Amino acid sequence: MKHEDPYSGKPLVVVGTVAIDSIRTPFGEREQVFGGSASYFSYAASFFHKVSLVGVVGEDFPPEYRRVLQERTIDLSNLKTVSGKTFAWKGFYEDDMNSAKTLETHLNVLASFDPEISLNHDPEFVFLANVDPVLQLKVLDQLAKPSLRFTACDTMNYWIASKREDLLKVLARVDGFVLNDAEARQLTGEPNLVRAAQIIRGYGPGCVIIKKGEHGVLVNAYNRFFALPAFPLETVFDPTGAGDSFAGGMMGYLSVTGDTSFENLKRAAAYGSVMASFAVEEFGLEKLRKISRADLDERLHLFKQVSHF
Amino acid sequence: MKHEDPYSGKPLVVVGTVAIDSIRTPFGEREQVFGGSASYFSYAASFFHKVSLVGVVGEDFPPEYRRVLQERTIDLSNLKTVSGKTFAWKGFYEDDMNSAKTLETHLNVLASFDPEISLNHDPEFVFLANVDPVLQLKVLDQLAKPSLRFTACDTMNYWIASKREDLLKVLARVDGFVLNDAEARQLTGEPNLVRAAQIIRGYGPGCVIIKKGEHGVLVNAYNRFFALPAFPLETVFDPTGAGDSFAGGMMGYLSVTGDTSFENLKRAAAYGSVMASFAVEEFGLEKLRKISRADLDERLHLFKQVSHF
Repeated sequence: MKHEDPYSGKPLVVVGTVAIDSIRTPFGEREQVFGGSASYFSYAASFFHKVSLVGVVGEDFPPEYRRVLQERTIDLSNLKTVSGKTFAWKGFYEDDMNSAKTLETHLNVLASFDPEISLNHDPEFVFLANVDPVLQLKVLDQLAKPSLRFTACDTMNYWIASKREDLLKVLARVDGFVLNDAEARQLTGEPNLVRAAQIIRGYGPGCVIIKKGEHGVLVNAYNRFFALPAFPLETVFDPTGAGDSFAGGMMGYLSVTGDTSFENLKRAAAYGSVMASFAVEEFGLEKLRKISRADLDERLHLFKQVSHF
Repeated sequence: MKHEDPYSGKPLVVVGTVAIDSIRTPFGEREQVFGGSASYFSYAASFFHKVSLVGVVGEDFPPEYRRVLQERTIDLSNLKTVSGKTFAWKGFYEDDMNSAKTLETHLNVLASFDPEISLNHDPEFVFLANVDPVLQLKVLDQLAKPSLRFTACDTMNYWIASKREDLLKVLARVDGFVLNDAEARQLTGEPNLVRAAQIIRGYGPGCVIIKKGEHGVLVNAYNRFFALPAFPLETVFDPTGAGDSFAGGMMGYLSVTGDTSFENLKRAAAYGSVMASFAVEEFGLEKLRKISRADLDERLHLFKQVSHF
């Protein structure tokens, strides 16, 4: 490990959404749950490393949600509060639990989000969670420092359909791209995910990480492949934030070890998988708030037992 | 290993179909291809162990197809030739390559198949490939010997829908059940595959092996789980026989090692996965006919590299 103390060194920077979610799954429903891509990502990454969250909330953002992040020593000096309401999402999952159905999206303060980032350090590891690729480009401009070692991004079907050219500009400038299987097929028009990953590598990122939900993850990194199954779970209670928790675990581990080699990326993806497996076991952040780094290590050990032959 | 010489000891017995297939995939089409569940299974298992094939063909069955099996020292003394035509299947695959669409099924001699098995040994390992569960029960009656150590079966959506009660009688009498994810959901009504596997174990089999095509395999064996991804393949040329090749590789390895422990079942499933990965690379049995046990071992080694972390 490069950084012995996980909270020393330059923090991992994440730019993304902070949201208030309303979620219904076959197991129940919750109103006004703390959510958003940057929230899940930061919380997950904070098990490994110091995190700086870049985002925006409205004046209605509950102080207790802010405390949830601060208790994990997540730096919130770039989480802006502006007049208006916090981004809100309402959705539900049906039996297959593999894809969310959106009922309502209220962009609110996110509509005018224009990230201006002040950091008292030059970042080494940066994650651009799911936001408009035009914003991702603005962030890349601000964070383009010589210190930068590994930048990764996420996206969603909406941006692939509506802002493909901007997304391709982002992809030309990042080292890693985290997306799900449906998005990989949508972006490339290629049903075979191995070939889709190769096509996407051609757009720029050296590492393409395709999340397949209950089926695990397929990675093409530096033109080599690896594949991990998902940790077998009897109960997927709420899949919201699973992908962001995966990315947070993976980037947190990469960041604290300072090692982006193929072999370490495998371990990072395994930690990401374990993180996601915890995240889906209860509503919102509830489960992640109950676990420790020791629980992650224990399940990683178990994950090896159930997948190595 | 229990049997040092893979062709000594009691052969693995397989009961299933021998067929003439016509296949169209996005990569081309072939008429009159040698196929059938027992053919793929036997060929795959023969890389590991002696196999005895129980089945039926018509008078039109080409002698060269018989030789394909005999060259692998597969015992064909229980492959009956009766008057009429060999079972024929015609189907195609679309872009996703995950499920075959049937155009024509001609049962022909299979319609009156009544397996009467004469073996000059008491079998230890038996596989009931996909045939009518009523026939699977008849076979179980004939093979119920004190020597029997591990019996496994396969099935298909058609039997789950039309002969559920007979299938449940089969499941109450076998040690292993190999099925795909759609069949597991159809049989149990449970979308979560981990829970579906547990429900199916309640029907009888100690080992439930759920094949997920490009997503690998999920196994509940003796109430413990393991999961393997699929070997990442750029080209899936023809998925026909992938499931039977998987089962043949797995059962062949179990049979030659004589070891049905959890840990050995993992290795067996890994060999099954590697076998299936070769099977789909060309039409029908073409690819399996070009490879050797050394190729299987080499890909197994590679499979570890791409999936262990």
